[in-house]
Amino acid sequence: MFQSFETTSETDKGAARLADLRKAMATEGLDGFFIPRSDAHQGEYVADHDARLAWLTGFTGSAGFCIALAGIAGVFVDGRYRVQVKEQVDLAAYTPVAWPETRPADWLKTQLGQGRIGFDPWLHSVSEIEGLTKALHGSGITLVPTANLVDRIWADQPAPPMGTITPYPIDFAGEAHGDKRARLAAQLAEAGHRAAVITLPDSIAWLLNIRGSDIPRNPVPHCFAVLHDDASVDLLAAADKVDTALRDHLGLGVRVLSVEDFGPLLQRLHGPVRIDANSCPVWVEMELNAAEVATVRGTDPCILPKACKSEAEIAGTREAHLRDAAAMCRLLAWFDAAGKTTLTEIEIVTALEGYRAETNSLLDISFDTICGAGPNGALPHYRVSHASNRGLNEGDLIVLDSGGQYFDGTTDITRTLVVGEAGAEEKACYTRVLQGMIAISRLRFPRGLAGMHLDAFARRPLWEAGLDFDHGTGHGVGTYLCVHEGPQRLSRISDTPLQAGMILSNEPGYYREGAFGIRIENLIVVQPAAALPGADDREMMAFETITWVPIETRLIDVSLMTQAERDWLNAYHAEVRNKVAPRLDGAAAMWLSRATEPI
Amino acid sequence: MFQSFETTSETDKGAARLADLRKAMATEGLDGFFIPRSDAHQGEYVADHDARLAWLTGFTGSAGFCIALAGIAGVFVDGRYRVQVKEQVDLAAYTPVAWPETRPADWLKTQLGQGRIGFDPWLHSVSEIEGLTKALHGSGITLVPTANLVDRIWADQPAPPMGTITPYPIDFAGEAHGDKRARLAAQLAEAGHRAAVITLPDSIAWLLNIRGSDIPRNPVPHCFAVLHDDASVDLLAAADKVDTALRDHLGLGVRVLSVEDFGPLLQRLHGPVRIDANSCPVWVEMELNAAEVATVRGTDPCILPKACKSEAEIAGTREAHLRDAAAMCRLLAWFDAAGKTTLTEIEIVTALEGYRAETNSLLDISFDTICGAGPNGALPHYRVSHASNRGLNEGDLIVLDSGGQYFDGTTDITRTLVVGEAGAEEKACYTRVLQGMIAISRLRFPRGLAGMHLDAFARRPLWEAGLDFDHGTGHGVGTYLCVHEGPQRLSRISDTPLQAGMILSNEPGYYREGAFGIRIENLIVVQPAAALPGADDREMMAFETITWVPIETRLIDVSLMTQAERDWLNAYHAEVRNKVAPRLDGAAAMWLSRATEPI
Repeated sequence: MFQSFETTSETDKGAARLADLRKAMATEGLDGFFIPRSDAHQGEYVADHDARLAWLTGFTGSAGFCIALAGIAGVFVDGRYRVQVKEQVDLAAYTPVAWPETRPADWLKTQLGQGRIGFDPWLHSVSEIEGLTKALHGSGITLVPTANLVDRIWADQPAPPMGTITPYPIDFAGEAHGDKRARLAAQLAEAGHRAAVITLPDSIAWLLNIRGSDIPRNPVPHCFAVLHDDASVDLLAAADKVDTALRDHLGLGVRVLSVEDFGPLLQRLHGPVRIDANSCPVWVEMELNAAEVATVRGTDPCILPKACKSEAEIAGTREAHLRDAAAMCRLLAWFDAAGKTTLTEIEIVTALEGYRAETNSLLDISFDTICGAGPNGALPHYRVSHASNRGLNEGDLIVLDSGGQYFDGTTDITRTLVVGEAGAEEKACYTRVLQGMIAISRLRFPRGLAGMHLDAFARRPLWEAGLDFDHGTGHGVGTYLCVHEGPQRLSRISDTPLQAGMILSNEPGYYREGAFGIRIENLIVVQPAAALPGADDREMMAFETITWVPIETRLIDVSLMTQAERDWLNAYHAEVRNKVAPRLDGAAAMWLSRATEPI
Repeated sequence: MFQSFETTSETDKGAARLADLRKAMATEGLDGFFIPRSDAHQGEYVADHDARLAWLTGFTGSAGFCIALAGIAGVFVDGRYRVQVKEQVDLAAYTPVAWPETRPADWLKTQLGQGRIGFDPWLHSVSEIEGLTKALHGSGITLVPTANLVDRIWADQPAPPMGTITPYPIDFAGEAHGDKRARLAAQLAEAGHRAAVITLPDSIAWLLNIRGSDIPRNPVPHCFAVLHDDASVDLLAAADKVDTALRDHLGLGVRVLSVEDFGPLLQRLHGPVRIDANSCPVWVEMELNAAEVATVRGTDPCILPKACKSEAEIAGTREAHLRDAAAMCRLLAWFDAAGKTTLTEIEIVTALEGYRAETNSLLDISFDTICGAGPNGALPHYRVSHASNRGLNEGDLIVLDSGGQYFDGTTDITRTLVVGEAGAEEKACYTRVLQGMIAISRLRFPRGLAGMHLDAFARRPLWEAGLDFDHGTGHGVGTYLCVHEGPQRLSRISDTPLQAGMILSNEPGYYREGAFGIRIENLIVVQPAAALPGADDREMMAFETITWVPIETRLIDVSLMTQAERDWLNAYHAEVRNKVAPRLDGAAAMWLSRATEPI
């Protein structure tokens, strides 16, 4: 079982650890110290070794940070975690702070007349320190790069992860890493950059066709890399992660160095060296500056090419989705046959992971399954624990958002389930969410448009009833990589033009606080649209749907839907049956027939 | 008759005038001189006095510029004017240049190794000169502010316009200018700015509740202003434009100075003084810099408040639209009864202006009427002249885009007319354009969204057929002011949040080159949406339609439309009949009954 329902928070130890930290601060002559949630790779998940925020404060959320001063220690969390933080930290020692409403610089200025605040330059990006430095300018408060003081007081800190790095075969990647390196090196050269520092593990995994196992959910290796304009790469990774098979895969164009060599390597570089200020640890910039190597700001060169999937990656992802669809159908068939009001959220999550595991291909779940029944469904980021676990009641909606990591692709799917008969209001809202999801699915649009131009289509049916939802419509998805990846998004703030091969989620929702939640999610791939007779001579794009699992029709208020919307849903369900029925038998196959009946 | 169908272009004099200009350049020790189309106010229309580009080169388009060098004179025009420029300039003397594809700095670098290029600092904005200076950096080409050399050689240059400035009564404006000044001064003070220089005539007209008559189509006065943080204003206007009634209207809070006082006034200011780099002549910045008055960049403080119309302005605009609708209906009834294939584009324009004039309220047309039959309709910015005038043929579509300036409001309406029976392709395209226009009309959306988030709704029905159009869906419209005003737009690049009271056009179109054009345009006002039962507690906005003229139903392919779209159109037509029938009689009233029948 990948998912756990425990929440380990050592609330009672937070005060003593904070006292230790304050002693270390005093020894260093510091008036404060920053404890971010992130590691040097700025990802969504951290290894136990890097779980400094949780160890110190007890707060286990996926975003936030602590600023410890001599007299106060603020734990900054966003709206998702306002309740959780109060339950997890010792409120006698730690003070929750509403972030981003309260900016850390403003808080510091209020709490501290002047002083020296330490930070670990590996754990903060260039942009982050730059923004903070600017906001503190003239305040008398200065930022001081130091060793990590939490590591110093954490006696039994787990060792850094040592997951073996493995090759990702070209049959799955679709492009040899030598070709990728050459392609990106040419772009670097054209920009006049001699090298680029790459610190995002999924960028390196994509570039070198490798995968890792250092953190849960994301099959990426903790490592760093420098891409040179001659197409060679320096890969900085712990020796224990690299075996002979990997060295063979990497070949002569990739020099493997230890992470300790990173500083000397940076100092030897000839500029201009590109760094991505949004992800690069400020430590890298400090090393380059100290050696007077010219730097230039720019986007990690892997981000856009990684997002535009190769034919092989798309083919693999399609297959992963069909495999995953069969598991989802078996779960839904099981659920439908169960005595639903005897079930709990955890039992559904457990059953689902079981069906995915039975594919014999599941390498991990792609994120902790969200299974929220009744009012829990109204929390878009809900994660079930033993403490929050809810039994199902008649009329409950259940938001079930989950995905699998398979060697050929990463899935992410949400369906909304129902216990018995739902109310009219729930059905109306569900139908509007579905109409938005269909609107995105059916869209044809000119090349060059971005998520900000299209996101509203997912919302219009809700808007008509005075409703909306407070998250983006979709995020980028990797191929056996991170389930959340950029740069593309379906969001009112995303200006990245949608390009062929980009995989996105299409997941409108609706959340009524304290009552119920709804979300329906398919993955889609941006593709050139098929030519139409009589069309203008202009390039149009369309979305290929790759998720094939029945959408609960018993929650639909058919009277709200247009014929075109019904036609889409019926065609979708016919295709689900075509594609998934061969992978099912017995009760699940019978369930599929029922679930895909036309409306 | 306001509109003329003449195009006065003294093509044959261009070479001699260029020779004179080159002599003046040589006298000044200049290697080149800039001749922009714009005047000091950067508006869409210029007075005869300011028509330097047309006088020199013969090119009469509404956008473009000339750069005269000793050996070559480039006339830079955009895609709309590529054909026209070749017909209007003496090609032995002038070289058309495709702009913005060719940037002036790049052209200068190619044509000229190094040298001094003169420009009149009154006629170029701060941003324009800044951008050009940056692009020329290191090239050896420098920009030199000078007197206007065209004025020097233009012996019979018309005098600057001296239109009287008149008060715009509070019953129409809805807010006293003292209150506007106080409101904006408070915002200036809050930003820490001591004063703001305002050089856009419609900003000044709005701020001081005045109107002018210096240029055609836009009832604005040529003048400048400085708003101070004590709510007082210095108005710089020629003495001949200001009479006692105006002085009474302006009162003690507005000091009237002559334009010659502008420089001394600027030099006396205490900074920081706000200037809007996009519109402010660089001359203003030079004066402030010379006197060491601190400047700060910022948006003209009138732009956003002017766009959010008062209740009185909206009420006036509604009335202007009803008056204009009656004139449009009489035109359409006349057209329907006419022997259409005996008509020409000019006869339609003339008849329309006649019906508007018969309201006895028409003060000007709000822009030169676009009346394009058949292939002429495929040119979105077509303006009919005697040379281009086209007779109507069976099956022709006619794009008729026009508007009136009335004392209570400015109108802008497009309808597509048909001669006899249109082809199936024309009908399908027309229906899709109409569906897009209806989609915008019906929209409800959360407060905070901008045109970039909504523009696509006007296009989706076209996209479904592989079609699109290459202009924005809508522009802002003033109240007895400019028919094109910012900052709001319905456009993929507009990030200005839509706020209550903003008037926009809603005008999707479709253009098939060499064949036909379609556009349908209503004006709409952003309003808080009516509350809905069961809605979320979030602010929603909607568009109030204020244009009430039948939309040609004989061009509709009803099979393409949803019931909701048909319902909208039928309700719209019922309302047109309710509102406009009382203003019509005889044949026009009978026509209205027929034209508003449900589909």
